[in-house]
Amino acid sequence: MRLALEMAAKGMYTTAPNPRVGCVIVKDNRIIGMGHTQPVGHAHAEVQALNDAADKGFEVEGATVYVTLEPCSHHGRTPPCADALIKARVGRVVAAIGDPNPLVAGQGMARLEAAGIQVARGVLEEEAREMNIGFLQRMQHGRPWVRMKAAATLDGKTALHNGISQWITGDEARADGHAWRARACAILTGIGTVMEDDPQLTVRAIDTPRQPLRIVIDSRLQISPHARVLEGGGTLIVAAQANPEKEAVLRDSGNEVIVLANAQGKVALPALMEELGRRQINELHVEAGFKLNGSLIREGCVDELLVYLAPSLLGDAQGMFDLPPLEDLEQRHQLSFHDIKRIGADLRILARFS
Amino acid sequence: MRLALEMAAKGMYTTAPNPRVGCVIVKDNRIIGMGHTQPVGHAHAEVQALNDAADKGFEVEGATVYVTLEPCSHHGRTPPCADALIKARVGRVVAAIGDPNPLVAGQGMARLEAAGIQVARGVLEEEAREMNIGFLQRMQHGRPWVRMKAAATLDGKTALHNGISQWITGDEARADGHAWRARACAILTGIGTVMEDDPQLTVRAIDTPRQPLRIVIDSRLQISPHARVLEGGGTLIVAAQANPEKEAVLRDSGNEVIVLANAQGKVALPALMEELGRRQINELHVEAGFKLNGSLIREGCVDELLVYLAPSLLGDAQGMFDLPPLEDLEQRHQLSFHDIKRIGADLRILARFS
Repeated sequence: MRLALEMAAKGMYTTAPNPRVGCVIVKDNRIIGMGHTQPVGHAHAEVQALNDAADKGFEVEGATVYVTLEPCSHHGRTPPCADALIKARVGRVVAAIGDPNPLVAGQGMARLEAAGIQVARGVLEEEAREMNIGFLQRMQHGRPWVRMKAAATLDGKTALHNGISQWITGDEARADGHAWRARACAILTGIGTVMEDDPQLTVRAIDTPRQPLRIVIDSRLQISPHARVLEGGGTLIVAAQANPEKEAVLRDSGNEVIVLANAQGKVALPALMEELGRRQINELHVEAGFKLNGSLIREGCVDELLVYLAPSLLGDAQGMFDLPPLEDLEQRHQLSFHDIKRIGADLRILARFS
Repeated sequence: MRLALEMAAKGMYTTAPNPRVGCVIVKDNRIIGMGHTQPVGHAHAEVQALNDAADKGFEVEGATVYVTLEPCSHHGRTPPCADALIKARVGRVVAAIGDPNPLVAGQGMARLEAAGIQVARGVLEEEAREMNIGFLQRMQHGRPWVRMKAAATLDGKTALHNGISQWITGDEARADGHAWRARACAILTGIGTVMEDDPQLTVRAIDTPRQPLRIVIDSRLQISPHARVLEGGGTLIVAAQANPEKEAVLRDSGNEVIVLANAQGKVALPALMEELGRRQINELHVEAGFKLNGSLIREGCVDELLVYLAPSLLGDAQGMFDLPPLEDLEQRHQLSFHDIKRIGADLRILARFS
């Protein structure tokens, strides 16, 4: 299963909106086939592994199949993997976790069992869940797993008052940040960051065959048609009020505009998360500024913080999150540290809201 | 030498102002004696180890002595250890590091060598230096090693605007903080913290036979004679202007007042560090608030930060250090992460100014 998880990781940047799945087939204590989910529309991990075994001339009948997610039981863009395993007459299927996709939800395992195949579940569950944290969140709650990235100094500052923030962290931390961008289905920022830093919002520091969708929260459609985030088209701009003229300009350059307002005339962030769920966004990577960061946290739209902490102090400067003053410590936003790692001279902290 | 360092650590809370030294005597591949520095005026590590060997009936002639700091060569409160080793006719002395004390400074090793004993130096140097970071700093620069403790949330906040800060971090972090208090020769705070929190500034969460000196920076002598930090007497109050009447009250309750002003009418912090060096303070532990923390950092009086980071966010609240806005990232205060450790649900970060 450990090896199956390593196979699954090979699809980190490519399987979306499908989950990252790895599969290892073992017979007579020997690995006879391995596979991982291919880009959407192509073979899933199980079929890849079956094909791998066949290519090598192995007979899979009676073999044990280790797979990091319950085999699918429905006809999607590809036929059900459960059927392929039944047809191949494997002897046993061990899945790390069940698939909460309502189209599967235990039916994959049930179908295998009904065909006389031994089944088991619950091996390396936590690692398997982490691998598909976004897919699982979307299947269970209809919205993406939202990861908010921030680069700050040890005293919690992200930029000088004059806006200078490049660079607070080192090269290694920035490259690591691009790996997190690459695994996300979409990267979200705000109009403030676009006007201040004019980011491209693409993955550049590492190789990836697929660029995530770019999303800009821009309540009053202030974005310049020349903003770099619009280059190449395909960017989603989310406004809080319609503006047919500006919208037309943006659409003409191949970008998309949607209007989603709340009662305060701002972009309705929770509704946007549901819309992104419908659009099959598994992991959403947020790189925004003080204000939008604060709004997203206040409105309960953030699942985890990815903080790169630099060993320096800025003093009187911009903070991380625009959150209102509290009267009582009980009201604080509580998280838990999930992972701590040194990245170059900096520290990477992954903390989850609890 | 690893074992000698473990022996040295036994003196963590007790040897000041002497260094923490450990000694292990080996003969025929067998440990025949061990010792560590006793409280001031009592035996040093080498003599302890020689006595230990004698007590157990071992003959130390020709043995190898591992010691974490160069043996002393001067008559202080106890006779020179180098002489004791020569008299015992040991064969070889291995010291982790040299003693920068101008009264020793290589003379210990030189005296041993002159007596025909083999000498070596430079084993586990870094660990040995860490063990006596305060003693070495004082010997080399005439001032203590200054460690500033802060407890903050992940967004760098230490208290709500209404002053509430108890407790941001968990029990384990607070107990760990008391261990750092215990190893310091003195604990320093400011009048702001005294008026707001009325701390005792003592070591309570862990056992220690010795309480560090308590120091309060109180420019205008605003301290109440009933402040808990004065309980039991012995506290040093540092003012920026004389006030014979108030000083008399404080002295009558067994406390000490000194006046050390700079040109701005504030306490002269660098001058205070030199005064504390003269008073044989090796490690100074600072637990102060936003303003005094900032002043100490600005005036270059801090060597390292001991930050306990809680996995929570406070938003609009009190920051860690009162430092002025910068125009350029080049002006930031640069540190390096020295040690990172999880303590309960919190994170402990030790960062050093570079």
